[in-house]
Amino acid sequence: MTRYALAVDIGGTKLEAALVAEDGAIVDGSRTRRPTGRTADAASLDAAIDEAVAHALAALPEGGELVGAGVGSAGPIDRAAGAITPVNMPRARGYRLADAVARAASTVVGREVTAVLGHDGGALALAEAWLGAARGSKAALSIVVSTGVGGGFTFAGAYAPGATGNAGHLGQVRREGGLTLEEIASGPASAAWAQAQGWTGATGEDLARDAAAGDPIARAAIERSARAVGEALADAATLVDLDVVAIGGGFSRVSDDYIDLVQQALTASAVHAYSQATRVVRSGLGDEGPLIGAAALVLR
Amino acid sequence: MTRYALAVDIGGTKLEAALVAEDGAIVDGSRTRRPTGRTADAASLDAAIDEAVAHALAALPEGGELVGAGVGSAGPIDRAAGAITPVNMPRARGYRLADAVARAASTVVGREVTAVLGHDGGALALAEAWLGAARGSKAALSIVVSTGVGGGFTFAGAYAPGATGNAGHLGQVRREGGLTLEEIASGPASAAWAQAQGWTGATGEDLARDAAAGDPIARAAIERSARAVGEALADAATLVDLDVVAIGGGFSRVSDDYIDLVQQALTASAVHAYSQATRVVRSGLGDEGPLIGAAALVLR
Repeated sequence: MTRYALAVDIGGTKLEAALVAEDGAIVDGSRTRRPTGRTADAASLDAAIDEAVAHALAALPEGGELVGAGVGSAGPIDRAAGAITPVNMPRARGYRLADAVARAASTVVGREVTAVLGHDGGALALAEAWLGAARGSKAALSIVVSTGVGGGFTFAGAYAPGATGNAGHLGQVRREGGLTLEEIASGPASAAWAQAQGWTGATGEDLARDAAAGDPIARAAIERSARAVGEALADAATLVDLDVVAIGGGFSRVSDDYIDLVQQALTASAVHAYSQATRVVRSGLGDEGPLIGAAALVLR
Repeated sequence: MTRYALAVDIGGTKLEAALVAEDGAIVDGSRTRRPTGRTADAASLDAAIDEAVAHALAALPEGGELVGAGVGSAGPIDRAAGAITPVNMPRARGYRLADAVARAASTVVGREVTAVLGHDGGALALAEAWLGAARGSKAALSIVVSTGVGGGFTFAGAYAPGATGNAGHLGQVRREGGLTLEEIASGPASAAWAQAQGWTGATGEDLARDAAAGDPIARAAIERSARAVGEALADAATLVDLDVVAIGGGFSRVSDDYIDLVQQALTASAVHAYSQATRVVRSGLGDEGPLIGAAALVLR
């Protein structure tokens, strides 16, 4: 009998749900999404979860075993309480997300289903260590560089959530001048920096196009982001002793050599040989990564 | 039958050995030390280990069970190979410390004894979570602030060595201006900074005395160290999600309020509520901590 997990991933723009088999495959037709947004509150999230969970669970094959629900959320979270305090959804602070998913799933299947909450970065890291670029790692940090910067740790493939489920918030470590890494190196921050230098584009996609066409400011913005990420990762690698860092997210694809630039900055900045040797690799996951990671919270 | 571990702790100035019972108590008369120093090499370390191990194991009670040897070493180390590359003992780089201890112990007891190597900071962290100030923590970083700055992580009391055994090297993360934390905040670095401001003392002990007597430069040097440590810990707490930071080491006792100053700096610098809530506490271990921690590598 194949084991399945209900997977839910919730962020500042959308909520997704799917049914994931024990091998990490998303069941055909089970994946669905609902909008969230800054005005999301408990009532709108309850409704979206009820609909999305019902859709995903309708794909459970006859005789398939549902082992539970894994839920990844934008942070910070309170893992013990199953509650979220997402920065981008101020009205949803304190929302008991795990309970809501468990209740919705239990209603559909007619028996009690338990739900496990993880930070979305932690869920993604678990997926990366399970089926992605951090397979076989002893100590990995898997991050996304996108509108934000964040991720999670795995040790020998096991999720390391920290005291409250928030380990991996790399974007909120402070760098030169007291700015956080995210305020320096995210896609929007990089575009804003380039604009301040006289560049006339608007988005990370514009930076990618203009850098590829030879625009020196766009190129400098990309190099600046990669250097900041690499230097922060050097500190993380020194502190936590990592063999692998996996990087995904939209802005990590802003140039073909972004991962190489991060590796160069990490190696140049790290003090000890063991952290200079940390390998920076491109994410091995597609856009199903967050859902696979959420499922892994209960399947792994 | 009581279980015992042979404990060995090796650093830049001395090597210590003792026999430690399963409750963490050092067996009376078993503790011994030998000098090391910058000129230590494989031959001198072999000889010192043979003597110290024989002394410690002579205290093994009739019928007591020796479960193995735990070895803590100044880093960096190569945990898998059981080898060390200590910064302060350049001639000992690559020395296979675990093998040397295992061989010495096996010779004494007449059967094969296995030895487990850990970074000294990791061993100390394990002791802190077992019998010290990090008892009951979910995710702890335990450090010393002394001539160096470093420590180790435990999650729910279990040692988190990282990929090569070097997790916890807080002193080698980079801070403002590219200096490492150790270059800013250690005892010698703090004394050097005060001298550059016109202070005429020499050591961390002098700083403690002069600050207590009202010398503003000495006091400023202490506050500067605590602030740098607290800000680095804020980043560590944000990244790894720590509930407890335990601080020991000679320079952490430079003023009665050093721990409080570190807490203030951590809370002020941390971005998220979960890391602002990280508690900074004084080490609960005495000078037996490194040996107890080394023993814990095999007893826990």
